[in-house]
Amino acid sequence: MTPGPALGEPGNRLGLPHHDGSPRYVSNQTPRLGDWVTVLLRVPRTVAVDSVYVRTVRDGEQHFVGAREVGTTAADTWWSAELECHNRVTAYRWLISGTTWPYAWLNGTGLHTRDVADAADFRLVAHDHPAPTWTEGAVVYQVFPDRFARSAAADTRPAPDWAIPKSWDEQPEMTGSAVVSKQFYGGDLDGVVENIDHVAALGADAIYLTPIFPARSNHRYDATDFDTVDPLLGGDPALRRLTRAAHEHGLKVIGDLTTNHCGDAHPWFVAARAPRRRGTPVPPERDFFYWDADGDYVGWLGVRSLPKFNHASAELRRRLVESAAGPVRKWLGRSGGLDGWRIDVANMTGRQGAVDLNHEVARSLRDTMDRHHPGALLIAEHGHDYTPDLTGDGWHGVMNYLGFCKPVWTWLARRDLPEGFLGSPMPVPNLPGDAVVATMREVTSQVAWQQLVHSFNLLGSHDTARIHSLVGGDPALVEAGAGLLLTMPGIAMITYGDEIGMPGLFGEDGRRPMPWDEHDWDHRILTAYRELVGVRRQSVALRTGGLRWVYAGADALVFLRECETEVALVHVSRAAHDPVRLRTSDLPGIADGRTAYGPNMRVGARTVTLRANGAGVRIRIWTPTDDGPSPRRVPTRRGEEG
Amino acid sequence: MTPGPALGEPGNRLGLPHHDGSPRYVSNQTPRLGDWVTVLLRVPRTVAVDSVYVRTVRDGEQHFVGAREVGTTAADTWWSAELECHNRVTAYRWLISGTTWPYAWLNGTGLHTRDVADAADFRLVAHDHPAPTWTEGAVVYQVFPDRFARSAAADTRPAPDWAIPKSWDEQPEMTGSAVVSKQFYGGDLDGVVENIDHVAALGADAIYLTPIFPARSNHRYDATDFDTVDPLLGGDPALRRLTRAAHEHGLKVIGDLTTNHCGDAHPWFVAARAPRRRGTPVPPERDFFYWDADGDYVGWLGVRSLPKFNHASAELRRRLVESAAGPVRKWLGRSGGLDGWRIDVANMTGRQGAVDLNHEVARSLRDTMDRHHPGALLIAEHGHDYTPDLTGDGWHGVMNYLGFCKPVWTWLARRDLPEGFLGSPMPVPNLPGDAVVATMREVTSQVAWQQLVHSFNLLGSHDTARIHSLVGGDPALVEAGAGLLLTMPGIAMITYGDEIGMPGLFGEDGRRPMPWDEHDWDHRILTAYRELVGVRRQSVALRTGGLRWVYAGADALVFLRECETEVALVHVSRAAHDPVRLRTSDLPGIADGRTAYGPNMRVGARTVTLRANGAGVRIRIWTPTDDGPSPRRVPTRRGEEG
Repeated sequence: MTPGPALGEPGNRLGLPHHDGSPRYVSNQTPRLGDWVTVLLRVPRTVAVDSVYVRTVRDGEQHFVGAREVGTTAADTWWSAELECHNRVTAYRWLISGTTWPYAWLNGTGLHTRDVADAADFRLVAHDHPAPTWTEGAVVYQVFPDRFARSAAADTRPAPDWAIPKSWDEQPEMTGSAVVSKQFYGGDLDGVVENIDHVAALGADAIYLTPIFPARSNHRYDATDFDTVDPLLGGDPALRRLTRAAHEHGLKVIGDLTTNHCGDAHPWFVAARAPRRRGTPVPPERDFFYWDADGDYVGWLGVRSLPKFNHASAELRRRLVESAAGPVRKWLGRSGGLDGWRIDVANMTGRQGAVDLNHEVARSLRDTMDRHHPGALLIAEHGHDYTPDLTGDGWHGVMNYLGFCKPVWTWLARRDLPEGFLGSPMPVPNLPGDAVVATMREVTSQVAWQQLVHSFNLLGSHDTARIHSLVGGDPALVEAGAGLLLTMPGIAMITYGDEIGMPGLFGEDGRRPMPWDEHDWDHRILTAYRELVGVRRQSVALRTGGLRWVYAGADALVFLRECETEVALVHVSRAAHDPVRLRTSDLPGIADGRTAYGPNMRVGARTVTLRANGAGVRIRIWTPTDDGPSPRRVPTRRGEEG
Repeated sequence: MTPGPALGEPGNRLGLPHHDGSPRYVSNQTPRLGDWVTVLLRVPRTVAVDSVYVRTVRDGEQHFVGAREVGTTAADTWWSAELECHNRVTAYRWLISGTTWPYAWLNGTGLHTRDVADAADFRLVAHDHPAPTWTEGAVVYQVFPDRFARSAAADTRPAPDWAIPKSWDEQPEMTGSAVVSKQFYGGDLDGVVENIDHVAALGADAIYLTPIFPARSNHRYDATDFDTVDPLLGGDPALRRLTRAAHEHGLKVIGDLTTNHCGDAHPWFVAARAPRRRGTPVPPERDFFYWDADGDYVGWLGVRSLPKFNHASAELRRRLVESAAGPVRKWLGRSGGLDGWRIDVANMTGRQGAVDLNHEVARSLRDTMDRHHPGALLIAEHGHDYTPDLTGDGWHGVMNYLGFCKPVWTWLARRDLPEGFLGSPMPVPNLPGDAVVATMREVTSQVAWQQLVHSFNLLGSHDTARIHSLVGGDPALVEAGAGLLLTMPGIAMITYGDEIGMPGLFGEDGRRPMPWDEHDWDHRILTAYRELVGVRRQSVALRTGGLRWVYAGADALVFLRECETEVALVHVSRAAHDPVRLRTSDLPGIADGRTAYGPNMRVGARTVTLRANGAGVRIRIWTPTDDGPSPRRVPTRRGEEG
């Protein structure tokens, strides 16, 4: 037996069979229960294969479907099978046998010449309400309202009682939680409107606003009210102006909702705690929160100002999620103007001790949005392993810290940061590319492709250090990070100011006011971001293609994004490295391709040579020639084309 | 950075840090919610470690607990941390940093010098009703009643109408489903009573009986009634005689229940299908089953004689599970005599299309048994990846096909079988030991230690080929298989006749009548089984110890079972191989050990040498000297010793 390269081993992977959940390999991205879906497998002709099966699970029993050979090109043999979406989730993997590998499984982490568990199986998720499609390859620009931009109107608003007013060019204090969250710069929504051209010029498709409800902190995660937009941000009219301006620029707007807690000044919590005379009824709000044996409330992570919601209360769920007047519905669509929600601390929502209602809350949010605001996006904040929570019937996607951000950090980190990654007590390590790719694949293989492409990839957020500081200020390494962000599958989220090289050694340090004097910007970084976003916008492969890893060495990552009409080869380096050589015949059509970004790749008659003298990004795009069959659409039982 | 041996790579693993869920490393095997548990980590002194943390998840948020050094021996440094069972399941893994590995995670699949997902985390499961303890290291003997033994009384019973009577020394027909399941040998429960000395002499702790309810097949998985023991088996009195005899011999008795379906002659199904006049009420039994759009019922895997239960019916759950008159309660304990249930097709129970009530059914069975029959065992049949279903609050354990049986088969298979493993269309491959161990670890790491040790390890069952045929009849390879079965963590299940070398090329072929003429027995195999069971019974390490892998090469598997008072070193070979050499100093106390099974190991002052000239088993047992601290028991909030 000749085993193939093991998972994570450096080396050219073009010689391995490939499948992923993208439209290149799967006929229907949004099946419904009972639909049949065609799945395709690409097997290099250098591999001798006699038989191929798809192994799936049906009503809890394993089930094998024979695949048949459906086409041969110069490079590959293609196999096809049809799977029925009999259950809500159809997990599947390929079983391949031949002289090269007598017994091999292909799942989301690659080829395995031994038996494997199901965790990394590919997945089809049947749902009556597919996730939105406007998110396809989208770029989202994250705005922290207090710090992004301040309109002239802000000068007319007195600072609130809780605030420590700061002027825009003053640096925030970084220590003392009593101070840090109270420093008030007065950025507002009209400030976003005034600078929307900057966001549009970057090529973004959406703005994600951290909370805009009234609160008693600059981050506003301690809402005192979900019914109005904070007057300090310009109130409801300012949100109307912002969403109108955004939509006119073709930008969606995503809000930020705390389903895990509210602020201790929220009327629900005030009512829950109000002293009451003997004999008066317990207010319904009492059940909205958790109370310990001493009658004290549970604050999120012990923070007193953030009482944690108890989703066992049907009345809470009604007021927060289901009712037309509740924030989830009120602020979406025509009434509120928003196009989706990012759910704060989604990973903890509904979880407390013995109780775990997390998936129920996620489903209830999804159902409510599907019913009343189809097309709205539902993203869960999740700082660690989100895969058990991304079941396909709740959150559309997550903030992909574990499967993207953390691996990229471990590849690019060039200096120690004062804080570990999202609570880790250890400094961010510096790891070789093969280890980084192994982590990316291990994590992302555990969710359906549709969930992956609806998740936010990110290089950081308002809760983390900024990429610029992580890489020690090296613009070439920032470019490498941005290159991965803007070429890998998923929604690309850019935190305001990353595109101009803003620093930030930790989350709070990154929440500095955006400098609007362009002399303070790093224009090399801005150009890289703008160009990479532009390449992404113009490439259907980068926006919608599958992901085939080609090479992962210590300092170089190389992968293909493939759709039927276009292929993009992406080569990202963190340092100079020995050339990576690929066979030109494995990449039919590459010779006639174009350089979309960075230095030219050397494409010879027999060999494609990928070189790097340092950190950087190179993208070549071409129209595939001789590239095998389409996944055949299977007529569904409803008589539609699948 | 010097990465350690990768998962699955051959090589001596004694140089790696180790933890597992066993009592050697975890202070409390049966914590309740709110309890604190101490976990220990063993780090070889050849490894330079500066800091150790335990990473866990609390209410959905990742959480790090610092570990402290608590002891040093000649071989190891020991670290300790305390974890609160704040949620029902507390997943955890170790984060290790020092000059050897600046950044390394230790989880159930081993050491990883990159970030990992949570799937292979260790797990503490808090439950108010811990799983039974009589199962600790138990050996279970599986009896298929129609084929094990026939008492004289059987001659007085006429064969039923559905049966094709066969005489005991006739071989069964193997083809034609109409014939195969109707061949009736007339084995009965008094036959088991008459031969209980054979079971006791083997050293078993329990008998597992496949179904004993009336049915219309020899396997009786098509129950026509759950209220009586089949008169063909001797009826209720025979079960009373059997359980009494078994208990007198110190043997428990486990029954087999179909919660997934019944036979089509069962009165519930007959009532559900009975034609009824317009205006008469729909019988409650109608909802016990699934009906398609044409009004036809759903049979298990399409088998017409096995209508599938619909657990959405509360009345079904009451009659089958919850009520005192239902089979789950009636046949356990004093009233019925049984000590546990093996649940047939547990993996499919409650699963049909969009509906998945599987975990609810498991929890309901567990709750019912905990409440009315504490100490009874609940085992799920599961033929593939059971890990998502072994949540700790339902099934105590599973039939461990994927994490034990299949890997052992792939290591020992010496001939092609006419059927693949449990429905696989491919022949069982022959794989090297490192691949086999990687699969074992990948699968078993995804469940809590308590679930693993409550699962049935097995070399086969009435549903598979027999080990004797799988290995081409080589008694040394049977011994190697039995060696793994009887030394690895878990309950060891032996199918009747395996211990005397019965053949079986596939499931039905293995269900031959047990020959009671001892001239037909392979006494070398019987001796191996008896001796291995005997070693197990006398060794607290083999019954209750942790599992530390030492070496996995193509032809040799070497591991330690460790508890505080005893260590067993197990060396199983499938063929002659180059000697494996271990450092004597890594195994303190080994020099004063004893050979418990097989040829002596060569223990020198500096080197322990493990040799094999062919397939076989060698076990050495000793009292550890200088073996580090105990996991310190933490007083619980209830004031108990944890």
